[in-house]
Amino acid sequence: MKTLNVSLGDRSYPIYIGTDLLSQPELLTTHIKHKEVLIVTNETIAPLYLDKVSQLLIDYRSESVVLPDGEEFKTLEVLNQVFDKLLSSRFSRQVTIIALGGGVIGDMAGFAASCYQRGVPFIQIPTTLLSQVDSSVGGKTAVNHALGKNMIGAFYQPQCVIADTNTLNTLDDQQLASGMAEVIKYGLINDPEFFDWLEHNIDKLNARDPETLAEAIERSCIDKATVVAEDEQERGVRALLNLGHTFGHAIETGMGYGEWLHGEAVACGMVMAAELSYRMGWITEGDVERIKAIIKAAHLPISPPQEMSVDQFMSLMAVDKKVQDGVIRLVLLKGIGQSVISDDYSLDKLKETIASFQ
Amino acid sequence: MKTLNVSLGDRSYPIYIGTDLLSQPELLTTHIKHKEVLIVTNETIAPLYLDKVSQLLIDYRSESVVLPDGEEFKTLEVLNQVFDKLLSSRFSRQVTIIALGGGVIGDMAGFAASCYQRGVPFIQIPTTLLSQVDSSVGGKTAVNHALGKNMIGAFYQPQCVIADTNTLNTLDDQQLASGMAEVIKYGLINDPEFFDWLEHNIDKLNARDPETLAEAIERSCIDKATVVAEDEQERGVRALLNLGHTFGHAIETGMGYGEWLHGEAVACGMVMAAELSYRMGWITEGDVERIKAIIKAAHLPISPPQEMSVDQFMSLMAVDKKVQDGVIRLVLLKGIGQSVISDDYSLDKLKETIASFQ
Repeated sequence: MKTLNVSLGDRSYPIYIGTDLLSQPELLTTHIKHKEVLIVTNETIAPLYLDKVSQLLIDYRSESVVLPDGEEFKTLEVLNQVFDKLLSSRFSRQVTIIALGGGVIGDMAGFAASCYQRGVPFIQIPTTLLSQVDSSVGGKTAVNHALGKNMIGAFYQPQCVIADTNTLNTLDDQQLASGMAEVIKYGLINDPEFFDWLEHNIDKLNARDPETLAEAIERSCIDKATVVAEDEQERGVRALLNLGHTFGHAIETGMGYGEWLHGEAVACGMVMAAELSYRMGWITEGDVERIKAIIKAAHLPISPPQEMSVDQFMSLMAVDKKVQDGVIRLVLLKGIGQSVISDDYSLDKLKETIASFQ
Repeated sequence: MKTLNVSLGDRSYPIYIGTDLLSQPELLTTHIKHKEVLIVTNETIAPLYLDKVSQLLIDYRSESVVLPDGEEFKTLEVLNQVFDKLLSSRFSRQVTIIALGGGVIGDMAGFAASCYQRGVPFIQIPTTLLSQVDSSVGGKTAVNHALGKNMIGAFYQPQCVIADTNTLNTLDDQQLASGMAEVIKYGLINDPEFFDWLEHNIDKLNARDPETLAEAIERSCIDKATVVAEDEQERGVRALLNLGHTFGHAIETGMGYGEWLHGEAVACGMVMAAELSYRMGWITEGDVERIKAIIKAAHLPISPPQEMSVDQFMSLMAVDKKVQDGVIRLVLLKGIGQSVISDDYSLDKLKETIASFQ
């Protein structure tokens, strides 16, 4: 087992990464202060892992709430089911909420924890590659709104994260690929060595080799933790983690939540960011080709849905959280492993880039 | 004008108290960093003060959302109207939200600000006595849930509070009395001198003498700020501010939100807390009489609704946020101006106390 510490002052917490961690009760119970526990999970994960996790908690008053599965259910209305459960079961401010599932469950359970009785502790047990590399670090929690993704939420840190790589065995190929998009992202943002390593190991990762996966998860979490430690509330450098996300969120919102997986949209968004960076003369054609090649090798899309127009992209991108004083700030590339937050690109070239995919 | 500073490290902020403050644009604009402003108000306050406040903001992109008036609308569903407005008008993370109204508006606008795009700045313009003495200090924001009051929320501090005593002229008598309940509370909790002062000035306060009101507001805010500075997140001593609230919340929830005004329920709750303290032998009959007398003089109720049974009280009080390990912790009195957080009372005497009112 690898243990990573995320350093955020009195909000610091450990991430445990390894095989068969869900058979070790003390990993979990060390981080539960009182006797009340609510497990938040979904219809897909509950039959697979809910009993296993509940058995770790036989000495606790532990209950569970099972939400529908999918990004389209990441709403205030569904969140209210968690509050209904917490209140009808009379959980106090001393309850610990456990998020057992992928990114959607982590986001919703974390946000519920941040606002139930104005804040109770929570623990993440991410069961997808995407959530193990992404939601584990950074404390972003949120639900979607019909008019924008992740628009209602909080920065809220967990007590610990338990990333059991065994849970990846039950992922389907599309979900695994979606997680790989975020892994590739960390290489592109600030870790060119990791990008090289990924190019050499993509086949092993696709084949779910446990050690290679654990290494990729650890490296991704370290890369992300470095950025988050510098800027917890996204006032500056943390925005780099949104590489591919402004384009990607437009795709997710435009197509309807759940149509494209988050990682698929981000992968395509990274290709679009790379293309714009190339048109600005900031990276070479060779760089763009390497980026497309690894995204393709990870079985991820390299072009946006044909039904989305340039206007629709522009309009959806304009409600993104990265907008400042009316200008869409984008994360672009000045090289592989060298990302920048920029409002210094040409709007014409942005439109040209989007149009070039159609 | 009086200026009070609430000391909370990098979350410190000023409270301005005085007459005609809504004619001074710079009080407001000093605390708005960017050009986007959303004013959140309600149907009662909008016709009275929305134009006045909007006129202070002619150099800004300022819009407003008008919510229905009343505690029964302090819900997640109505909160979503604020998010709808923010998103459909494309407000970015740089928006400042202004709460213009009483406690319900302050709680909802503050909670919306805490979670819109994971947190944007907000400013309180409280227009009721209750909100000027209570919501101004402490950063508690929340909405209600059908199963409990203020169960979903956040600790979130404003940029500043502007308490214009002119706005109290448009309050009806019942609303003014409701605010007086919280004012009396500060005397009871930790300020016996203020309690004496209130006994001598209650007639002037009922008559809305502006200077006497400003003095009572300032003293209440100072008393509250002292407690909050010591314990922002209510891990300990801050719970004292809930004197009368565990009983009071049971009344509000039991009768249906909006039936009893918050201050009315708290006033009655303080009498019940005093009666229990007397039955425990902690205060004298004379203390109870003084407490009842001033609450009556402020035109506030001194007994709970007859239709509520002991069982209903006990059941509703058990979901209060002050419950720990199954025990209802109450704020009780060891004297006037000397409150304690206690789980050391007799459950039988609690039930006897509730029954004695029926």
